[in-house]
Amino acid sequence: MVKIERPLRNLHPVIFIVSVMFVLLSIFMTLPPLLLLNADAPNAMAFGESAAIVFAMGLAGILASYGKSRDLKPRYMFVLTVFSWLVISLVSAMPFYLSDSGISVTDAIFESTSGITTTGATVLVGLDFMDQDLLLWRSILQWIGGIGIIGMFVAVLPFLRVGGMRLFATESSEWTDKALPRMKTLSRGLLLVYVVFSVVAVLVYWVSGMSLFDAFNHGLTSIATGGYSTSDLSMGKFDSDLILLEATLFMAIGGMPFFLFVREMHGQRGVLWRDQQVRLFVSILLLVPLALTFYRWGVSEDFDFISGYISVLFNVTSVVTTSGYASEDYSAWGSLSFVLFFFLMFIGGCSGSTSGGMKIFRFQLSLIVLKEQLMRLLHPRAVLTRNFNGRPVSDEIITSMIAYTFIFLLCLLAITLALAALHLDFVTSLSGALSSLTNVGPGLGAIIGPAGNFASLPDAAKWILCAGMLLGRLEILSVVVVLSPGFWRS
Amino acid sequence: MVKIERPLRNLHPVIFIVSVMFVLLSIFMTLPPLLLLNADAPNAMAFGESAAIVFAMGLAGILASYGKSRDLKPRYMFVLTVFSWLVISLVSAMPFYLSDSGISVTDAIFESTSGITTTGATVLVGLDFMDQDLLLWRSILQWIGGIGIIGMFVAVLPFLRVGGMRLFATESSEWTDKALPRMKTLSRGLLLVYVVFSVVAVLVYWVSGMSLFDAFNHGLTSIATGGYSTSDLSMGKFDSDLILLEATLFMAIGGMPFFLFVREMHGQRGVLWRDQQVRLFVSILLLVPLALTFYRWGVSEDFDFISGYISVLFNVTSVVTTSGYASEDYSAWGSLSFVLFFFLMFIGGCSGSTSGGMKIFRFQLSLIVLKEQLMRLLHPRAVLTRNFNGRPVSDEIITSMIAYTFIFLLCLLAITLALAALHLDFVTSLSGALSSLTNVGPGLGAIIGPAGNFASLPDAAKWILCAGMLLGRLEILSVVVVLSPGFWRS
Ligand SMILES: [K+]
Ligand SMILES: [K+]
Repeated sequence: MVKIERPLRNLHPVIFIVSVMFVLLSIFMTLPPLLLLNADAPNAMAFGESAAIVFAMGLAGILASYGKSRDLKPRYMFVLTVFSWLVISLVSAMPFYLSDSGISVTDAIFESTSGITTTGATVLVGLDFMDQDLLLWRSILQWIGGIGIIGMFVAVLPFLRVGGMRLFATESSEWTDKALPRMKTLSRGLLLVYVVFSVVAVLVYWVSGMSLFDAFNHGLTSIATGGYSTSDLSMGKFDSDLILLEATLFMAIGGMPFFLFVREMHGQRGVLWRDQQVRLFVSILLLVPLALTFYRWGVSEDFDFISGYISVLFNVTSVVTTSGYASEDYSAWGSLSFVLFFFLMFIGGCSGSTSGGMKIFRFQLSLIVLKEQLMRLLHPRAVLTRNFNGRPVSDEIITSMIAYTFIFLLCLLAITLALAALHLDFVTSLSGALSSLTNVGPGLGAIIGPAGNFASLPDAAKWILCAGMLLGRLEILSVVVVLSPGFWRS
Repeated sequence: MVKIERPLRNLHPVIFIVSVMFVLLSIFMTLPPLLLLNADAPNAMAFGESAAIVFAMGLAGILASYGKSRDLKPRYMFVLTVFSWLVISLVSAMPFYLSDSGISVTDAIFESTSGITTTGATVLVGLDFMDQDLLLWRSILQWIGGIGIIGMFVAVLPFLRVGGMRLFATESSEWTDKALPRMKTLSRGLLLVYVVFSVVAVLVYWVSGMSLFDAFNHGLTSIATGGYSTSDLSMGKFDSDLILLEATLFMAIGGMPFFLFVREMHGQRGVLWRDQQVRLFVSILLLVPLALTFYRWGVSEDFDFISGYISVLFNVTSVVTTSGYASEDYSAWGSLSFVLFFFLMFIGGCSGSTSGGMKIFRFQLSLIVLKEQLMRLLHPRAVLTRNFNGRPVSDEIITSMIAYTFIFLLCLLAITLALAALHLDFVTSLSGALSSLTNVGPGLGAIIGPAGNFASLPDAAKWILCAGMLLGRLEILSVVVVLSPGFWRS
């Protein structure tokens, strides 16, 4: 009896926090019909029911855990992280399932998981004619997911010490009483920056020619680097170089560390541009599209340099920031583009952004280790120090980064094999696995590529991809820790 | 003047050793016509001329460096390693180029590089009707390459401290005066074991139904995990389950650490099986084919379990040991097999074997780091020690392993992009790059897959793949060190 009761007692704070999230989520669920004034919200009932159920669940959870210990043991931070993303993915599927669009349970959960993880892979076809409230819910989910991951990065991940995230730990991520006010200021700042950028994106898109509805959806999903669109043509719908350039900018903002925006806001001018991660990120976004444009210009008979460059810039930025929009089928741009986009899917944006992927800083740490190794081979007796952003990099951070990379590749292997066992072809299996783990969204090839859709995949493949999206979003290791047998013992 | 002279003076021992290698190589060059008693050696002149030229070059080099300092500075070990493999690849191409078969310079160098690096990718079509002396030269090249890499592993690599190779350093790899006799005993033992296994393989193939010529060629290329065959059908030519099983065994032997065979021979019974690397290697060869056979059996209508198992076992072993033989087109076995074979190409055999690839021990080290990370996440204050084969694993070895892995992946990226820029498709570019870096041989897909051939690739692609094969064989880092600007300074 004692063995069962102890972990249950400790789970109370987890239940409390998740229940509060449920209440917040239920409020968001009322937004689609409210914003559309019910006129264009044929599924108002579905949203109302979903909101009521989730609110009731949240209320019950709050009552059940009220007055109980709020002492969140470190170990239960892992449970909170994994459990909250999992159950919010599940309950967010309710409006899709309860709608009149005949969406299956699998498809509803795929769509909501892809939304909340800001992956943006979709199983819904005919977006241009879809009920507007459902489209709005998809975009809102990605917007919630975006601020969720930013918050998790600041509040939870450095504390969990997974995947080299300790590198970004500051005094404010110690969870001491002294740090709490600073943490609150930071959280408020992050939320403010996120909301301001979103509002600006919506307005800019609107004045650039999008309808208010399209502008609202794309504004939310651009900053969240989510990639859900209101058209099967994605951003290709608008056929506007101006909008592609604006989207490029907003995606790039979404791929940058938001805590640096807050510090800029608090008067620390220049911290953004002095950040090593941001510098490499911006360099990639400047150089790779330029190189690819010159290559395409060189091998194509009929290639308009300016509009070609804008398209390359937009689509490369979309993949590097793990947004997953497309303006055209870049997987049909020839072999070099195909291979390049495959490798770009690994990179991901900056840590502390809404982007997924392996993240720029991990490549920088690997490069630091490589340089160090070369130095050591040339000068065996040299004393070497590692620095990132002016701070020393401990061995612990390096091994933690390796552990992440290794398990990332193991997951890529496992998911690819699982998809291939379902008879999906090599390119679909490999790019689908990669795209889910990195939260990019579309894969490569005819089926799930930028011009494709996940609808035709077997249900089993959709579940596997859902697992991949959640694993990717949670930096994998936090999930593995919770699933490890040793975790629940002692 | 002084700046130029100093490095030249230090290069004398490098020139001396490479010249001795040239003299040995010229002796091997006379073997094809001699073994075939000239009757089946239409290119006797080509071999004679090549041997004469290489012998003359060797003699000139020995005379030029004779009496000069034999003091090989550590830094010049890198030069020796890289330079020797490069020039031997080049001069070994001579018999192909000088033959009557109309082989271009590019094709001749591709074939010899693929031979000496034991890669086994071939640009020659119509092997079944090819001049026997040329076929014999291909096999002999792989056999030389096999003993070459075993020797390099013991004598040079631990000393160079690249890619975690320090893990295998013993007292005998210190190059001290005291260690020299032990090194000599080890070298003699390695050569003996290698020759004995090769002779046994030739004899076993012969009594199992191969012609003596086929048995000789395949015996040499099995132990060398080279994969050159005397038929376009590779081992499929013999249509014999018995021969496939024998070849599986010989390839597995070729993929094991040869220094452990020597220790077994010297009476240290059981060291082979107690070795962690060998255990995982054997487990992979037992479990993966079994799992794949069951899968194929489950999804196929008409699948003979026994002969199906033997075929899977043989082809999986061929890829894991980086031999590159095929008994049938395994890339047509369906999506799961395709994906599985792609990932198997990464693994490689054991360190200290004739196999290429990333090597089993690197995955084991990664796994150790991953386990350590999980333990640390669960028990932040625990004191952890890393062990491999009962010896502690230093941080230096771990960072050196990461550096190798990172640069391996960077090379994979660069070669894949380069091939794709030549308009090769995604699968051909990616699997070709991987197969060259891991010295497997065949890639995947219709063009360079197990049923394909590298002949149709553009010349530029062949040169890129040559570079990949050499990089892979030299554990990449040794090449990078020599090419780094800092190397030639100071
Ligand atoms: K996305
Ligand atoms: K090979």
